[in-house]
Amino acid sequence: MLDTIGEQRKEFRARYFVESPDPLQKAAETIAGEQSSGTFLAVPGETDDLKRRARARVTRVDPQPPVLEPSLHSALVERRNHGGVYHRGEIEIAFPVDNVGANLPTLLATVAGNLFELGDLTGVRLLDVDLPADYVKRFDGPKFGMAGTRAKAGVFGRPMIGTIIKPSIGLTAEQTATLVDTLLAGGIDFIKDDELLADPSYAPFEQRLAAVIPVLHRHADRLGRMPMYAINITGSIDELRDRHDQVLRAGGTCVMVSINWVGFAAMQHLRRHSELPIHAHRNGWGAMTRHPQLGFSFGAYQKLWRLAGIDQLHVGGLRSKFSETDAVVIEAAKGCLTPFAGTAPVMPVFSSGQWAGHAPELFSALGSTDLMHLAGGGIVSHPGGVSAGVASMREAWEAAIAGVPLDVYALERPALRSALAKFGGLA
Amino acid sequence: MLDTIGEQRKEFRARYFVESPDPLQKAAETIAGEQSSGTFLAVPGETDDLKRRARARVTRVDPQPPVLEPSLHSALVERRNHGGVYHRGEIEIAFPVDNVGANLPTLLATVAGNLFELGDLTGVRLLDVDLPADYVKRFDGPKFGMAGTRAKAGVFGRPMIGTIIKPSIGLTAEQTATLVDTLLAGGIDFIKDDELLADPSYAPFEQRLAAVIPVLHRHADRLGRMPMYAINITGSIDELRDRHDQVLRAGGTCVMVSINWVGFAAMQHLRRHSELPIHAHRNGWGAMTRHPQLGFSFGAYQKLWRLAGIDQLHVGGLRSKFSETDAVVIEAAKGCLTPFAGTAPVMPVFSSGQWAGHAPELFSALGSTDLMHLAGGGIVSHPGGVSAGVASMREAWEAAIAGVPLDVYALERPALRSALAKFGGLA
Repeated sequence: MLDTIGEQRKEFRARYFVESPDPLQKAAETIAGEQSSGTFLAVPGETDDLKRRARARVTRVDPQPPVLEPSLHSALVERRNHGGVYHRGEIEIAFPVDNVGANLPTLLATVAGNLFELGDLTGVRLLDVDLPADYVKRFDGPKFGMAGTRAKAGVFGRPMIGTIIKPSIGLTAEQTATLVDTLLAGGIDFIKDDELLADPSYAPFEQRLAAVIPVLHRHADRLGRMPMYAINITGSIDELRDRHDQVLRAGGTCVMVSINWVGFAAMQHLRRHSELPIHAHRNGWGAMTRHPQLGFSFGAYQKLWRLAGIDQLHVGGLRSKFSETDAVVIEAAKGCLTPFAGTAPVMPVFSSGQWAGHAPELFSALGSTDLMHLAGGGIVSHPGGVSAGVASMREAWEAAIAGVPLDVYALERPALRSALAKFGGLA
Repeated sequence: MLDTIGEQRKEFRARYFVESPDPLQKAAETIAGEQSSGTFLAVPGETDDLKRRARARVTRVDPQPPVLEPSLHSALVERRNHGGVYHRGEIEIAFPVDNVGANLPTLLATVAGNLFELGDLTGVRLLDVDLPADYVKRFDGPKFGMAGTRAKAGVFGRPMIGTIIKPSIGLTAEQTATLVDTLLAGGIDFIKDDELLADPSYAPFEQRLAAVIPVLHRHADRLGRMPMYAINITGSIDELRDRHDQVLRAGGTCVMVSINWVGFAAMQHLRRHSELPIHAHRNGWGAMTRHPQLGFSFGAYQKLWRLAGIDQLHVGGLRSKFSETDAVVIEAAKGCLTPFAGTAPVMPVFSSGQWAGHAPELFSALGSTDLMHLAGGGIVSHPGGVSAGVASMREAWEAAIAGVPLDVYALERPALRSALAKFGGLA
């Protein structure tokens, strides 16, 4: 019966890596049952009629070579005294849209809920989700996305070059404003707060905003466009709305949020209210992704947050201080830029350990300049100062786009030349 | 300088398991720097004055035996060609309260943010948090907690015996109401929705509430107290508030939320608005905890959610379908019941694979009857039906409290006797 119901109802799909002492097909059925109307064994009341309505179905099972040791411990497997191999593979499950509707937290509970805890599994990772476009339409999605971010910032045809307020936390409001002034004088397109900095008692949000906004306007007068400052509005629901409104009234063009810790419902709420692009900081992401047989792959993560309405999303950096490989980082950025069921592409944000030298590789890997390229030391520690640091980043991207090797392009460009000399060992 | 500033400023603390190719002290300093005002290397602008204000400090480093293989992959460690051992241990970091204030999502970004991704670490797990009571006062905390839940339900001196609507999803509103009627007629104290069931198109929230509430009132008339039904209100911010209000107006006594997926800001918002105990479902928890060298231990998790204001929290079950060991489950429940910086204890919810036979062990391990004991099959699959299933649970707890072995107590109690005969093999 389940084989034919896919044609009779609207479904969305989730793809998982699964590892289990059970054969892969059985493990897949366990997940499909647990995450819909039944368990592997029949549940009283799970009639054919109910199954047609509510039962998830396994639509694909692709085995991989089994392993001898479980990736994750399970007390249940231990009680079973399992002596055999652990089956592995990728599976896909189709869920009825009617089970969930336009309820994002419950969509998460369905594709990423109790299944992670199932004792029958010794590995389980959400790799991707696939939602039909007319279902996705019921979620808000990005209001600005990549294109809207560019429009607000007035930066086109090249990456947005940016940096982060450092020290991450501890500056007073006035110190922050002075630093912002220096950075903007150096020609930077984008500045963001650190995720640690939201509302410290010695530099409350309101004071920071009041100190920074006049600086932004002064440079806007000079530039003919408002520099984009992603001020961290992370806080309670009321604070998110109120701070957004303050930024909007003051003429700011971006707000930043720690998405994992305000959560999906808060982000949806902000999105519905917001008239500014939302810079999504993914701090905490490592806890959800670092073990390869557990948690989330970025492909699924970014789609779910796109549904909530983020506009810019961190993807890490090449050779950064973080644990992810460059391949994972590039794949993440590509995901952000790939159309998804009618939602606008979001702006991938490269950050951590970045400098001019990464431009050719980024451009070649992405085939696009649609990104934010944030550099800390690569800008502020440039021997020529901030403006030379920013210039080196822009020149490197000019060279990358023109297909000219950096060392050649640097011959007549001292800022890029100094960057290559100073940071070249980091590439 | 950092050694003495702890006396000059208010701090909160976080305890971690850490694994790193770096010596443990250095790894701890890396985290403290990254999660406050600096990195391990000096950051320009990190003055002594700023450090006094904002720099986190390492307050404890307890080494454990090193290991030869890293628990988690790190591209950074790979680039370093690390050939030595991986140091391990527990560390504690003290953060200035002033950095964060009463901002729960930013508290998370501070104790559970980018540190999980740090390439210098090959293992990192938040074990516990310790906040001073006058800081905790700035958060809402549970409005009802364990004691308020009991008061609302009118159940004292024994665990609240409960069950979950099954099939998890797919029943119509009328079918749900009929099942609730049967369960309440059987004498159950508490019923909850499955986390998958929130607002399906064939059984919308409003219809389910409208169908179930008259049944609850009918039994309340008979019992002299309102049976507690934790209806799943998970949804958007507006839906959370609106559905809470509907439940309250209709005379309901509990609401349920998928906490990880509405998020901290949403839960705080609901708590401030709520006049009903909040049943916190932790689905997705496995993704954050299943790898022992990554993510969260329950001790930290439950404290952070207590700050947000939950009243009842799932802790798993003995010999359940989930992966956690019984020791972890018991420890989790004890954590919920342990005072934490002035916040009320929350009600631990035991669920999955539970039946009467678990009562003596639970009572002996917890030394308390302050829990919800939810049984599915242990109640509805009892040979004598639902009311015998409920009776068997109550009788088992009477025996446990009286210190009488179950088989002795069962001699004159057929419901318990049948439960032991049918489910005894599961103990």
